[in-house]
Amino acid sequence: MRSSIAWSDQDSITVRGLDLTRDIIGEMTPTELMLFLLKGKKVEDAERRMLDALLVTLAEHGMTPSVIAARMTILGSPEALQAAVAAGLLGAGSVYLGTTEQATLMLQEALNGQSASAADPLSEIAVRVVGSYRERRQKIPGIGHPIHTGGDPRTLKLFALADELGFSGSYIALMQAVAAEASARLGRPMPINAAGAVGAIAAEMGLDGRIVRGIGIVARCIGLLGHLQEEILDPIATEVWELVEDTIEYPPGARSGTRDERRP
Amino acid sequence: MRSSIAWSDQDSITVRGLDLTRDIIGEMTPTELMLFLLKGKKVEDAERRMLDALLVTLAEHGMTPSVIAARMTILGSPEALQAAVAAGLLGAGSVYLGTTEQATLMLQEALNGQSASAADPLSEIAVRVVGSYRERRQKIPGIGHPIHTGGDPRTLKLFALADELGFSGSYIALMQAVAAEASARLGRPMPINAAGAVGAIAAEMGLDGRIVRGIGIVARCIGLLGHLQEEILDPIATEVWELVEDTIEYPPGARSGTRDERRP
Amino acid sequence: MRSSIAWSDQDSITVRGLDLTRDIIGEMTPTELMLFLLKGKKVEDAERRMLDALLVTLAEHGMTPSVIAARMTILGSPEALQAAVAAGLLGAGSVYLGTTEQATLMLQEALNGQSASAADPLSEIAVRVVGSYRERRQKIPGIGHPIHTGGDPRTLKLFALADELGFSGSYIALMQAVAAEASARLGRPMPINAAGAVGAIAAEMGLDGRIVRGIGIVARCIGLLGHLQEEILDPIATEVWELVEDTIEYPPGARSGTRDERRP
Amino acid sequence: MRSSIAWSDQDSITVRGLDLTRDIIGEMTPTELMLFLLKGKKVEDAERRMLDALLVTLAEHGMTPSVIAARMTILGSPEALQAAVAAGLLGAGSVYLGTTEQATLMLQEALNGQSASAADPLSEIAVRVVGSYRERRQKIPGIGHPIHTGGDPRTLKLFALADELGFSGSYIALMQAVAAEASARLGRPMPINAAGAVGAIAAEMGLDGRIVRGIGIVARCIGLLGHLQEEILDPIATEVWELVEDTIEYPPGARSGTRDERRP
Repeated sequence: MRSSIAWSDQDSITVRGLDLTRDIIGEMTPTELMLFLLKGKKVEDAERRMLDALLVTLAEHGMTPSVIAARMTILGSPEALQAAVAAGLLGAGSVYLGTTEQATLMLQEALNGQSASAADPLSEIAVRVVGSYRERRQKIPGIGHPIHTGGDPRTLKLFALADELGFSGSYIALMQAVAAEASARLGRPMPINAAGAVGAIAAEMGLDGRIVRGIGIVARCIGLLGHLQEEILDPIATEVWELVEDTIEYPPGARSGTRDERRP
Repeated sequence: MRSSIAWSDQDSITVRGLDLTRDIIGEMTPTELMLFLLKGKKVEDAERRMLDALLVTLAEHGMTPSVIAARMTILGSPEALQAAVAAGLLGAGSVYLGTTEQATLMLQEALNGQSASAADPLSEIAVRVVGSYRERRQKIPGIGHPIHTGGDPRTLKLFALADELGFSGSYIALMQAVAAEASARLGRPMPINAAGAVGAIAAEMGLDGRIVRGIGIVARCIGLLGHLQEEILDPIATEVWELVEDTIEYPPGARSGTRDERRP
Repeated sequence: MRSSIAWSDQDSITVRGLDLTRDIIGEMTPTELMLFLLKGKKVEDAERRMLDALLVTLAEHGMTPSVIAARMTILGSPEALQAAVAAGLLGAGSVYLGTTEQATLMLQEALNGQSASAADPLSEIAVRVVGSYRERRQKIPGIGHPIHTGGDPRTLKLFALADELGFSGSYIALMQAVAAEASARLGRPMPINAAGAVGAIAAEMGLDGRIVRGIGIVARCIGLLGHLQEEILDPIATEVWELVEDTIEYPPGARSGTRDERRP
Repeated sequence: MRSSIAWSDQDSITVRGLDLTRDIIGEMTPTELMLFLLKGKKVEDAERRMLDALLVTLAEHGMTPSVIAARMTILGSPEALQAAVAAGLLGAGSVYLGTTEQATLMLQEALNGQSASAADPLSEIAVRVVGSYRERRQKIPGIGHPIHTGGDPRTLKLFALADELGFSGSYIALMQAVAAEASARLGRPMPINAAGAVGAIAAEMGLDGRIVRGIGIVARCIGLLGHLQEEILDPIATEVWELVEDTIEYPPGARSGTRDERRP
């Protein structure tokens, strides 16, 4: 029963060998600390800038289901901000943020620590990857976008930054080959979306695929605070509730016009 | 470091001294088990019927904020039903379900194990209770209703049942005196609402006020399952999301008509 | 955007067509309401008794990870009982309570609305089921027990009750055939455990497999309240924390004996 | 029903007036985005550095109750990382992280937008603050430490940094006056602890007290990911569970020695 992350005695808290007060407060940013905790060694500036970009990409997308859940929760529990944040995070499953993780795992399994080679080029690996998802009738994680068929602008920006910072390698190349193969197989554009870009870059950064969903969780946590502060200062949750309750159709005869009188 | 609730060995699980397989499965209802866990002794039939009534009162009220939060959550995490239920429970704070608990605590503190007496009748105690809330400018828990100024029908039914089952005593009488005093002081009807009725009856049943919110939590858990099953079979969460996102007004110039094209 | 579960007007709350005050409070138990919400029709007494038994089976198993999580949470948030319950529910995933759901889905998919027949007897279906799990190297849900190799006593009790109440049919028979086939294939006893029994009986009751995990969630909710009340009255969470923190081994040289002075 | 945080159209996501792709990704750190969301305007470098320091101060303190809850949760729900993070956040209530918020609110209410003056010096305000807590028999938030009676080293570091970055003003001065007054009244050292330092600096930064708990929530989110990754790679949750279950004393006669055989 061992743990190597942090411990404390009468005088100090030690985090992976560093003294919290002397070496971390005022010396590291939260992103650097996050990488330090996950990788166990001090990080390069390029790594910090790369993870900064991934985090801000996923933080705030407007009035999402996650935000609605958080605002509904603080309406009943104004004394428990953490409960509202938790409610907003709980939807970070397979459908949205989980796709970043699935993309990283897909790429890491496909390359399995190996590079592509003349004998087994990326295009061949991509054919196998796309084939295996189609066989299982599963969506390929990180591929496809309802609007940006020509390419998600966030992906282009993230990949340009990855190139600049030295994180452009086999994983991103494979992701691009997978997108190309999927587009060819399906006969319509299947660009890499933002989740796919985050997943591919996380693989380049050497992060364990099983923790990659955590990037979106930390990011969303930040975004939720902005919405919860607005909800405290200029609340809309009650109106959202009434809008939903009043728009839904109930079985025939369910309501008989007294509704308008109820909430004047 | 002691616990008296349950333990197990190679052959059996023991719950507060009873054998789970022999004495509980097929022998107790969940409500009886809940009371047995909270009170540490086997329950009378009247107690079980009373708690049954409190539980079903709080289980299902339609498209509440709690239900909306749960539906928003399962949209992103369909593989984690427990996360959607948890999101739906997290709003059970001071504003809605917490008022049951506050009502019980208010009554228990006011009577403090004593009965009213000729020297200190309930009407005097009620004057002190109402006065202390007004002094702190706090709402009196369990009192007041936006519509049912003549009396919440759920309260009438619950109090009739409490009377029938032998749970009509000083706590309910004090709650009624508090409602009368508050109505007189405010000059408008302040009936006992359903949360107030649950809180007063929980006090009559001898439940610890600090756990009374748990009645609503178990109840809501049951109600949420009905909604989550409907969401699985006949989903509306995406439409709710779009309805909210599209109805909100953003700052001037924020959107420029491309929205309708986006979700055709 | 429709919902058929509950709605309200100025005078009443209607739950699946019934009036909450008149038809449900004092008239239904929570278990009956749960079945009514899930099935949309009033339930037979046998169904209620069967679900009662499933619920109490899963409610309370002692100092489980779920209970530890809930106790750790109320230590920091004593004002938010719902947060502690939610923390205790969040572990109800694939490893423990989720297996009930997986068992129901396995049986429902295998029989697919059909009965076994002379041409395709249950024993053959069981061979295919066991084979498909072994091929995918997955554990068969609801099968196997670390101690009760001769048969989990809770399973025996639940199946006896199912027989008495008229819920003993093809699903339970298939579960037994699967257990027999798995035992034969693996060369060691693979009895049906309590989760498997619950899953098979839920299938017999016609519940949708995707909501079956909810039985355990409601049950655990009840069990957690018992522990949280004990934690409020006779707390152990701080000692549990210190026990864990002090037992863990940190990297060499991590702590130097000042610990005992720290918490005298 | 208005919101000013973020919105999107076919081509872009706009966050408080900035284009996510062009102005935020690669241009802001998460801390800058957090401040931008909370304050609605671009931040100075000093503000970013100050919030960076507050965040890393609260991120990681070893095997805390929050961490234990998260590890217990992932044991049952390995497929739902967000559920484990949420469980770890749910204890961020009044006892631990909530004290940062309470400290900010205490200071903001005491100064109420005014500075101290010759007629009403900080020492007098501190006397009133300490008096009002003692009258209500409540703990003063952010004051007192079980070990560092001479001064919490994290506080000293944070206040030095606040001084360097221009965030040393009336709120910190009042916090120090409150600590001095409390020490004098109680007759023993009551230093400002790390939560008190964070709360005072948050007040200096002009953050709304009702959202200050969010600093600790984001911070803890980062810390939890480190522990959850360790739990995935080198798990201890089962052993923690067994340690707790086996150390607890159950009622006399509760267990009879079969335990050791159960888990060999």
